[in-house]
Amino acid sequence: MKFSNFFSPTLKNVPAEAEIISHQLMIRSGMIKQSSAGIYSWLPLGLRVLKNIENIVRDEQNKAGAVELLMPTIQSADLWIKSGRYNEYGKEMLRIKDRSGREILYGPTNEELITDIFQSYVNSYKDLPKNLYHIQWKFRDEVRPRFGVMRGREFLMKDNYSFDLSEQDAIISYNKMFEAYIKTFLRLGLIPISLRAETGPIGGSLSHEFQILAKTGESTLYYDKDLEQIDPTNIDTKKLQSYYAAVDDLHDQSKCPIEKNQLKIAKGIEVGHIFYFGTKYSEKLGAFVQNNKGENVPVHMGSYGIGISRLVGAIIEASHDDKGIIWPLNIAPFKISIINLMIDDENCKKVADNFYNQLSSKFDILYDDRDCSIGKKLSDNDLIGIPYQIIIGKRDVKDNLVEFKVRQTNESKKISIDEVINIVSKKINL
Amino acid sequence: MKFSNFFSPTLKNVPAEAEIISHQLMIRSGMIKQSSAGIYSWLPLGLRVLKNIENIVRDEQNKAGAVELLMPTIQSADLWIKSGRYNEYGKEMLRIKDRSGREILYGPTNEELITDIFQSYVNSYKDLPKNLYHIQWKFRDEVRPRFGVMRGREFLMKDNYSFDLSEQDAIISYNKMFEAYIKTFLRLGLIPISLRAETGPIGGSLSHEFQILAKTGESTLYYDKDLEQIDPTNIDTKKLQSYYAAVDDLHDQSKCPIEKNQLKIAKGIEVGHIFYFGTKYSEKLGAFVQNNKGENVPVHMGSYGIGISRLVGAIIEASHDDKGIIWPLNIAPFKISIINLMIDDENCKKVADNFYNQLSSKFDILYDDRDCSIGKKLSDNDLIGIPYQIIIGKRDVKDNLVEFKVRQTNESKKISIDEVINIVSKKINL
Repeated sequence: MKFSNFFSPTLKNVPAEAEIISHQLMIRSGMIKQSSAGIYSWLPLGLRVLKNIENIVRDEQNKAGAVELLMPTIQSADLWIKSGRYNEYGKEMLRIKDRSGREILYGPTNEELITDIFQSYVNSYKDLPKNLYHIQWKFRDEVRPRFGVMRGREFLMKDNYSFDLSEQDAIISYNKMFEAYIKTFLRLGLIPISLRAETGPIGGSLSHEFQILAKTGESTLYYDKDLEQIDPTNIDTKKLQSYYAAVDDLHDQSKCPIEKNQLKIAKGIEVGHIFYFGTKYSEKLGAFVQNNKGENVPVHMGSYGIGISRLVGAIIEASHDDKGIIWPLNIAPFKISIINLMIDDENCKKVADNFYNQLSSKFDILYDDRDCSIGKKLSDNDLIGIPYQIIIGKRDVKDNLVEFKVRQTNESKKISIDEVINIVSKKINL
Repeated sequence: MKFSNFFSPTLKNVPAEAEIISHQLMIRSGMIKQSSAGIYSWLPLGLRVLKNIENIVRDEQNKAGAVELLMPTIQSADLWIKSGRYNEYGKEMLRIKDRSGREILYGPTNEELITDIFQSYVNSYKDLPKNLYHIQWKFRDEVRPRFGVMRGREFLMKDNYSFDLSEQDAIISYNKMFEAYIKTFLRLGLIPISLRAETGPIGGSLSHEFQILAKTGESTLYYDKDLEQIDPTNIDTKKLQSYYAAVDDLHDQSKCPIEKNQLKIAKGIEVGHIFYFGTKYSEKLGAFVQNNKGENVPVHMGSYGIGISRLVGAIIEASHDDKGIIWPLNIAPFKISIINLMIDDENCKKVADNFYNQLSSKFDILYDDRDCSIGKKLSDNDLIGIPYQIIIGKRDVKDNLVEFKVRQTNESKKISIDEVINIVSKKINL
């Protein structure tokens, strides 16, 4: 993508309402634009990151055997009245009357609708287990939306729902999702800390939340430091679930079961939550199957959520410096930028064009061909966090050199023009 | 994907409310489930088709130089009041009050919001032309939603918006989109007929609609038969725009400019619409740029829509037989099915497993391993319209044969097991 054809307006000034660093950086780098309180347009740069995260989440769901469908954003109130949550949910639910006066709502979550879909088609234990997910926009009418996409009103969430014959089977499904979540967060370049959690208004008996470590995180976590040492090739769900971990208001030092030198205190941001809630919804909404004795029994359900738009903010909180965002390679909007510092110089243009032609078929490339100052070009590429930057200047090119910069470390070195393709390809394919 | 792990409930009975064939087939094949009037859940099979169409639309937009962003579904009423459309739009607009009593709405289209985004960042003619698109769910509160996804209330649309300095430049952008639309519909396996259209409530002076031919179409079209003969490698926009074409209520035989033997009459379904509307929104919403004389001038805009969820229904109307759907290869939910007629037979299972292992890394495969009757397996695969079907039966396997069926023609022949991979790969990669 040529920067001159792109639509990525970077800003120098931080808007006053942006209190936290991710919100500031997302606005300054031209990732989002607020359209009304807690509601954002995703500009091209932001959308690329959102999609990259979405695709990793999707891929791990598919690998874990979950099947994707898509429920609508607007739901009828009927099912929520049946489940009893229409009154319970309170003002966070965006309630609407359509032109015929029917009560509808913008879905804040989907337990009711998915249970209805399930019960319409499945009626035998032979069709179990099932695990269905979707990635869809939700709306929660927060009383005070803030922190940009971290606590917006319209937000993108992956939510899935498991259906099993028994509690025992349901726990297997639950643990499979636990593992998928750990894998997902590791692939996103994050350190996930899993904590036993209260089930709250969703109900049920078993729940974990997933926090990722970030110096500027909103929660303070107390946890066994071994939780940070996860081997991505060998995830043992039972072991991870056995470690001590608690948020600050649940942590009581006098009752802490682990030794002080094993305990770590760090800041985190919640990005996922999983629940096993038994037959709460299946009983109310009639999701029964026949078991192998011919009896009709309610299915055991779990639900599992990852806040995808929230993750964009959370990852920035976890990975930035004073120059801007530092994207983990897997989710960077572009993996490489080719920065031509002298667009009017024929040699620079030739070298830059040549790299672009060779690399753009293989990788997501941002070709910075803008007519602006050298300073702006360099600072913009750091601000938007491109992992590898090939910087082309007039003097270097005469010596057959370019500058190669790694955003993660901010280190750069001169390398021969002939080596660039080879070095870059190796870095990306690692 | 193993059918036994999938979630694709086929039905024998046609629901009474499904009046048209695409609606009937989408419900019978388990592509969608109605959740309330005009609002559907996309079950896994339907979602795959929807995504395939979306990706082709996206690819042609990118190739034409449009840049993707994503605007939210919920908009503030403010911009619509500014443009004058908040009152004009009538009851089709889903109007909502949030918890603070602010007037918001579920976007039926995005001229206002995109113009606001544009004017926030662009202020020089040097940054033009720009063409921004998004693919997002919209809501129009139809008084009588019907025909399934063809006239739903919540629907997926690709809409884009071009911004130019002058009318002349805007027509260039308009024609580029015209060409992109023709390419898009051809890639979807359709025959597009372009017609000059009224601009209607969007305003402006130039507009075309795109209909695709379907025997069960809703409109009757009168057009020059040369319009059907488009060479996909050489699309001449001017020539296409010069042909005669009109819907029946605008066609007057006595004034028809072409000869009778050149005139064709056929049924069509509208799937796209493009507009040039000048400075209507830019003036009202303050989208001005400085021209090369330093004067502030309003930008010239166009908007362009393709109904993606509507296309799913339209394609089925254009491509089905009495057995079910016939998917064009490019958008089929799975390109190949491996149908094991005898799941308890060891040889059949071995052959089927072997094909699945070899093919599933390269293509989207549906492996029908369900425990159901032979008749149901064969009819389901025809109903859901899998283009190429490898049918594995006990007797054939003993003779080292399988049946290879092409859904388009319903012709099948026995081929040697050793040839299957080769033949299938050639068909798909054509």
